[in-house]
Amino acid sequence: MKNRIITISREFGSGGRTIGKKVAERLNIPCYDNELLQKIAAESGFHENYIKDAGEYAPGGFLASAFSHGVFGPSNEDYIWEIQCRIITELAEKGPCVIVGRCADYILRDKADCLRVFIHADLEFRAKRIVEVYGEREASPEQRLREKDKRRAAYHRFYTDMKWGHTQNYDLTLNSGTLGIDRCVELIGQLY
Amino acid sequence: MKNRIITISREFGSGGRTIGKKVAERLNIPCYDNELLQKIAAESGFHENYIKDAGEYAPGGFLASAFSHGVFGPSNEDYIWEIQCRIITELAEKGPCVIVGRCADYILRDKADCLRVFIHADLEFRAKRIVEVYGEREASPEQRLREKDKRRAAYHRFYTDMKWGHTQNYDLTLNSGTLGIDRCVELIGQLY
Repeated sequence: MKNRIITISREFGSGGRTIGKKVAERLNIPCYDNELLQKIAAESGFHENYIKDAGEYAPGGFLASAFSHGVFGPSNEDYIWEIQCRIITELAEKGPCVIVGRCADYILRDKADCLRVFIHADLEFRAKRIVEVYGEREASPEQRLREKDKRRAAYHRFYTDMKWGHTQNYDLTLNSGTLGIDRCVELIGQLY
Repeated sequence: MKNRIITISREFGSGGRTIGKKVAERLNIPCYDNELLQKIAAESGFHENYIKDAGEYAPGGFLASAFSHGVFGPSNEDYIWEIQCRIITELAEKGPCVIVGRCADYILRDKADCLRVFIHADLEFRAKRIVEVYGEREASPEQRLREKDKRRAAYHRFYTDMKWGHTQNYDLTLNSGTLGIDRCVELIGQLY
């Protein structure tokens, strides 16, 4: 019997992480986000901040590509990806949980009974949110959001061959900007 | 005060129309689908079947394109599009309702308080459904679904400049194949 897992992918600033945590609290199951990062850091020996970045950057450029395709052996990113796959699979085997980001939907596609959620919102909502919640002070939060989105999409494409944010890859996609964070939490909790 | 409207876009065979009807029943508001077709047919003078097709074919090819860009005056499709815009706007002004298809989400974008829903499902689910529900007898229902999807996407692109089925255009997208028709109805009804 496969465990029921909620995987949450999200646009940067859409509140996906907050939604994941609140859903987990509501359902009284664990939510893996930072904890996941810590586990991957501990196993790989890389610093958490490096892991965080490696979850957003696809290996790019000629040399990186040569590395990652094994010409010079696996890249750091590939090494981290292997560990990430193993840790996410182990967590999913332990029991029902919420996993935020890290391509968990793809990694668990044949291994768990996943409710695959994607959270998004328009640029304006997200720009306001990253300034308010994260205290971002950049001249153009919109520019930063676009870059973050592009990176996550590229990372997903590189490792999963799935198009990030495409309706067809999810059971449910929610616009947290128009629906509000709390209603998103309610809906996911109810579906589970 | 703008009326609250539920617009449902859907992949062919995903059960979007059925979901629209059931949501409307549940909320005790009208659902416009065939009725919309009849109104457009009555106003335009075209046969309902023609209108039905015109809601899926973007004017294509050189001549059609020349027509539709006004070189030889507006095309039949443009003429129908104008009437469709007017009728959908009038219906939305009359009161809360569910509108299935016909780019209502785009047409009403500044005119109503819309809950914009997209229903999709994987090919297998939809192929089974169109054989069972619509009695389709084609050798390859999958092929037919792919063609239908392509046409709807092209029609949307042509008239709305929006990408059909792209997460960002909706408040909520639901996979009727994995969630089931009834749960989709529940969720939409509850959100409204």
